[in-house]
Amino acid sequence: MNKTYLLAPGPTPVPEKVNLEMAAPMIHHRTPQFSKIFGEAAEDAKYLFQTKQDVMILASTGTGGMEACITNLFSPGDKVLVINGGKFGERWGKISQTYGLEPVWINVEWGQAVKVADVKAELDKNPDIRGVLVQASETSTTVSHPIEEISKLTRQRDDLLLVVDGITAVGVYPLPMDEWGIDAVITGSQKALQLPPGLALVSLSEKAWKQAEKAKCPHFYFDLAKERKNLADKTTAYTPAVSLVIGLREVLKNIKEEGLENVHKRHNRLARATRAAVKALGMQPVAPDSPADSATGMFIPEGVDGGKLVKSLRDEFGVTLAGGQDKWKGKVVRIAHLGYVDTFDTVVAIAALEMALNKFGANVQMGKGVAAAQEILLEAYCK
Amino acid sequence: MNKTYLLAPGPTPVPEKVNLEMAAPMIHHRTPQFSKIFGEAAEDAKYLFQTKQDVMILASTGTGGMEACITNLFSPGDKVLVINGGKFGERWGKISQTYGLEPVWINVEWGQAVKVADVKAELDKNPDIRGVLVQASETSTTVSHPIEEISKLTRQRDDLLLVVDGITAVGVYPLPMDEWGIDAVITGSQKALQLPPGLALVSLSEKAWKQAEKAKCPHFYFDLAKERKNLADKTTAYTPAVSLVIGLREVLKNIKEEGLENVHKRHNRLARATRAAVKALGMQPVAPDSPADSATGMFIPEGVDGGKLVKSLRDEFGVTLAGGQDKWKGKVVRIAHLGYVDTFDTVVAIAALEMALNKFGANVQMGKGVAAAQEILLEAYCK
Amino acid sequence: MNKTYLLAPGPTPVPEKVNLEMAAPMIHHRTPQFSKIFGEAAEDAKYLFQTKQDVMILASTGTGGMEACITNLFSPGDKVLVINGGKFGERWGKISQTYGLEPVWINVEWGQAVKVADVKAELDKNPDIRGVLVQASETSTTVSHPIEEISKLTRQRDDLLLVVDGITAVGVYPLPMDEWGIDAVITGSQKALQLPPGLALVSLSEKAWKQAEKAKCPHFYFDLAKERKNLADKTTAYTPAVSLVIGLREVLKNIKEEGLENVHKRHNRLARATRAAVKALGMQPVAPDSPADSATGMFIPEGVDGGKLVKSLRDEFGVTLAGGQDKWKGKVVRIAHLGYVDTFDTVVAIAALEMALNKFGANVQMGKGVAAAQEILLEAYCK
Amino acid sequence: MNKTYLLAPGPTPVPEKVNLEMAAPMIHHRTPQFSKIFGEAAEDAKYLFQTKQDVMILASTGTGGMEACITNLFSPGDKVLVINGGKFGERWGKISQTYGLEPVWINVEWGQAVKVADVKAELDKNPDIRGVLVQASETSTTVSHPIEEISKLTRQRDDLLLVVDGITAVGVYPLPMDEWGIDAVITGSQKALQLPPGLALVSLSEKAWKQAEKAKCPHFYFDLAKERKNLADKTTAYTPAVSLVIGLREVLKNIKEEGLENVHKRHNRLARATRAAVKALGMQPVAPDSPADSATGMFIPEGVDGGKLVKSLRDEFGVTLAGGQDKWKGKVVRIAHLGYVDTFDTVVAIAALEMALNKFGANVQMGKGVAAAQEILLEAYCK
Repeated sequence: MNKTYLLAPGPTPVPEKVNLEMAAPMIHHRTPQFSKIFGEAAEDAKYLFQTKQDVMILASTGTGGMEACITNLFSPGDKVLVINGGKFGERWGKISQTYGLEPVWINVEWGQAVKVADVKAELDKNPDIRGVLVQASETSTTVSHPIEEISKLTRQRDDLLLVVDGITAVGVYPLPMDEWGIDAVITGSQKALQLPPGLALVSLSEKAWKQAEKAKCPHFYFDLAKERKNLADKTTAYTPAVSLVIGLREVLKNIKEEGLENVHKRHNRLARATRAAVKALGMQPVAPDSPADSATGMFIPEGVDGGKLVKSLRDEFGVTLAGGQDKWKGKVVRIAHLGYVDTFDTVVAIAALEMALNKFGANVQMGKGVAAAQEILLEAYCK
Repeated sequence: MNKTYLLAPGPTPVPEKVNLEMAAPMIHHRTPQFSKIFGEAAEDAKYLFQTKQDVMILASTGTGGMEACITNLFSPGDKVLVINGGKFGERWGKISQTYGLEPVWINVEWGQAVKVADVKAELDKNPDIRGVLVQASETSTTVSHPIEEISKLTRQRDDLLLVVDGITAVGVYPLPMDEWGIDAVITGSQKALQLPPGLALVSLSEKAWKQAEKAKCPHFYFDLAKERKNLADKTTAYTPAVSLVIGLREVLKNIKEEGLENVHKRHNRLARATRAAVKALGMQPVAPDSPADSATGMFIPEGVDGGKLVKSLRDEFGVTLAGGQDKWKGKVVRIAHLGYVDTFDTVVAIAALEMALNKFGANVQMGKGVAAAQEILLEAYCK
Repeated sequence: MNKTYLLAPGPTPVPEKVNLEMAAPMIHHRTPQFSKIFGEAAEDAKYLFQTKQDVMILASTGTGGMEACITNLFSPGDKVLVINGGKFGERWGKISQTYGLEPVWINVEWGQAVKVADVKAELDKNPDIRGVLVQASETSTTVSHPIEEISKLTRQRDDLLLVVDGITAVGVYPLPMDEWGIDAVITGSQKALQLPPGLALVSLSEKAWKQAEKAKCPHFYFDLAKERKNLADKTTAYTPAVSLVIGLREVLKNIKEEGLENVHKRHNRLARATRAAVKALGMQPVAPDSPADSATGMFIPEGVDGGKLVKSLRDEFGVTLAGGQDKWKGKVVRIAHLGYVDTFDTVVAIAALEMALNKFGANVQMGKGVAAAQEILLEAYCK
Repeated sequence: MNKTYLLAPGPTPVPEKVNLEMAAPMIHHRTPQFSKIFGEAAEDAKYLFQTKQDVMILASTGTGGMEACITNLFSPGDKVLVINGGKFGERWGKISQTYGLEPVWINVEWGQAVKVADVKAELDKNPDIRGVLVQASETSTTVSHPIEEISKLTRQRDDLLLVVDGITAVGVYPLPMDEWGIDAVITGSQKALQLPPGLALVSLSEKAWKQAEKAKCPHFYFDLAKERKNLADKTTAYTPAVSLVIGLREVLKNIKEEGLENVHKRHNRLARATRAAVKALGMQPVAPDSPADSATGMFIPEGVDGGKLVKSLRDEFGVTLAGGQDKWKGKVVRIAHLGYVDTFDTVVAIAALEMALNKFGANVQMGKGVAAAQEILLEAYCK
């Protein structure tokens, strides 16, 4: 028997009914029938993004959405501040360079959040910076960057955009785009949105749309203004990923029904429970000071081969967690809290981790992490 | 969000891929295409029943299979020995009476297995008894009756049949029909077979087929001889439940691939783990002496309303366990190990039970049951 | 490539969305969640049956429903009038004999409906007849028997029940149980109900319920009074076929939405179109005088091997029609209009038949049957 | 009732079993399990493309694949020859301009194929042209351009690439990339590949890979060299569209099983049958001289409003065909032969068109088009 549990930070489990919804006979995308679905999805996406702005739905994965923000908002030669605190921060820099922007890098130690003072200093030093590029949640390090504080620096200026990769943050914890004045937010379908990969969602502020008019980086497939124009007619510039959009409407309905605040609380509860388990098991969290609620990373005890541990968890225990990336390869394991994940997924992840650590000879008392997690998870059932 | 876990002793979870297999476009049942499927299912069912005899596949739930055994094997006026140790034992008696048989009852205290000596005594006292009707696993009390021992009494006699309701035993623990000389075995699709309800499977020994020729109870829809004749042509007497038969082929393939011995070991491991958790939590098992590996029942601690507990587990925690039936209503909770259920389902059931007991004020230390279970469950991963 | 079309008189195609609905994760049957579904299905089934009486939902195929009517309504020795105009009429007689009833046979020539005068004559001759057993639509001959006229004979008498096998009539053409005073109506899931086989639905009149109280034929699994009692609590006596009941609720919703009258009109339109095609192609209908709207049978032209024709249609053309049964084997082909079938299924069946007849050398002008059908089918789109 | 038929040139129907395959529980993309699937899909894609080169699988729709070819193969200032014979030819020009290329336009009358002599003349006149950008099948006009002949002009030169949009040609009719020496071929998932939209597939010749090394157009998300490098490890540069890749493997298996030659023959047969029907109905084809086998366009008879006709076909008859685009809006209807489409889909499309034309008062004899089509379609069943 081969039962599996998916607790990696994307792709995340897809609700069975959403999978079945997407398995219905194909429909044509230039029909009132699809327009209705697309229009509802786009509308509910605003709720998710906590914005009144349009949310564009692109047939690509998240990186395409990041590229769209660069090419639609900036011009070659533009200076941008890149918060590089992990693999995805680094990606902001690489895309910028590809399109001829001039990144100013703030390199942050892995496991740490960027210091707002550092951002301020660089912005002060480089008044010609046109954009701050940052992750809300840096998935590779399970760190949450201080977006609200950074937004206080950016929203005062007309010529400076705050561009936030919210791929593992939107639908996980509060990132109120309009309230904080974020200028661009991106997410992908395979994270908190509980869908297969294949959609990127992007929303821009008024300020961003204005700057977009002057942006000179070339772009055709990822043309946000063209998509926005089509969106007004409940359609897309090019063929949309029909089945995924059908799924999107469905999960957004579910999220609305659960209530965004409750969705955030759920992710937070699972994250706190997992952190408590990590502590109870005497393990070291990788992001002790500013952990994101999207995933919890921890260092694997000395003497245990992290690669083998994660492989055994996946192939023998059936529990897919994420290992460490790049410099943390083989040293770190990450448990995701993203998407269609709840109390007992978290219990399973912790129980499996305890058992696998035992199997690999680590001095870990089984049940102790689970017990610590249960204390917090019980909150959901005792109102 | 509403994630659910089904750990009641039937229906049990259906593997996602089997559900999808059954969702394929309908096919006609009088075609080579369906005959191939039906023939393979019937063939693999022999492996499951540990027999060389035909296994008939009926479009009904398990009770229909029980009735089929009564009406195809006996005649009005026949004396039968009914082992009544719970709700399903009682059903044997009721069906017998309906068809004019004369049941001799052995009433067994709930939670106890029948004593072989008692069976022997009744058989000795009533040499005209033509059948022993018994459950391998009495689902209502989570008790396992001593079928092997009883079979030693019955297989010596030509005019005495051992008719075993194996509905929650076949595919759970060894019930080798041919080796033990059991004369009739029944199971249903919604238990260890991991399917929706709607199929009953029945197999008869040579001795049973011989007695069937003389049986005079009326039957038309449940006509085992007619089904056997059709089975030789890979078809059924009446329209089969096509989609469920398609699923049946699939799950039987999975069971063969896992290996029946491993399937039995898995159920046993989950049962032992749960019993260890019950003990660790200081709870009382309902079947302390002869527990079945199909489900583990325990008394709910004083002061906790069992009905409310099971309801909260189901509606708030999303974990469907079974309460007690009839006289045990409100006093007992049962965790099933049946079917598409493995390590982490068991962890979830125990963790949920711990949390719910806590919520209802029981003095239970969370994580303790889980830890006890983990010790045993770990066996599967340390060869 | 292997596209298939199913136009046999059961099983019929299942709507894709209903198949997906039934593929959702299994739920337990003793829960408010299932009770809601079951209650809604049972309620909407009354609309389908055109009755205020309860409709019992049994986990069996249609023959089980027929048996239930015999064993729940009659006693050994009871005289019943069997209208034997085909394979299913004959089945009424066989079940009756099995349970010790005394059938009085009216043997009707295949392809003809029973003459009401003949029924009246037998009833007059045998005033002790307690039931008239008849098909509304005799599937094997595609004949419709005159139920309304027969009901005028039966409903005047308190001690005479009209028991109608509506397996291929309910949901096909009007069979208003209450209005006509029919005492028992049976249908199955795999016909007009557009589901996989595995459910039988049965409804009884007040008169029938009264007679049921005195009926002495043994029955346990098919216990209509027990089912009715459970139905009041939105549950079943024994485990229901959960997935099929979920599908049942769905298709009944669809039927209500389409409107029963429109459902009847649709079946009638498809039947008339097919009959027009048969005529245009110069073929002989098997039921020229009283054809049922459930399926249209026709004799295969001289010189064409009917078995090979039907096999080629199924295995080469991908179009599953039904051949003839028993004495009509190899001589007849039947096109069904049942269930999830509409205009273009009918066009496909006729076009395929034309092509296959051509392939087998029959002198048939392709397109001629289609054209005749189109004339009638167009009605649906020109209001 | 609402049965629907999808015969537009994309998206096309998805086989039911492929839809169900894609509905299986989500799996992680950085696992041996997914790598196996991805590797098999990429390998079988070579068979489809008739090439030994790698086929890159991108998470985007077809236009993204077109952009990828422009940005990965060319540099700003490069001169390219754009064959503009319809909406998609025009798109080649627009993408080129976006990225600073200098298109030389050959404008072809709608409904006509480009003249090879014209291509030759322009290439001779502009020896600095670095690429010929063309559609194999121009979907908007249902025209097939003479790719083989054009390839004879391009393959002699080392500095000239033939870039073919094969979106509605690959898997429809022969486009042997290696044999003809085509330098870039693109297709999308929602056409002959029978999948939902969301994947673009691209393959490059050795010559193209060489030119790619020098190409200076910026690109990040669509980085073919990076994808090729990852492909060697059976993975992708960024998160792949997991569910669609699972579907891709499945349909490619089906195509291999059917045999590419048979797939081509099937499309050709359906196209010829439809053209014969158009002729029999006295309608004018839009591409009389060089029709593509992907779809057949025809002018709508005078006096019939094409917009209303197509809408009625879709919303009343349930048959989705495509209307005309841009200048042909309201004047043209297109029947697709693409993908999971066979004999009786074609019969349905023609029968529905005949009926709808009748409804709208056109002087069309029903059945005549069907009959003409049947003559040709019958070929498949008479070997």
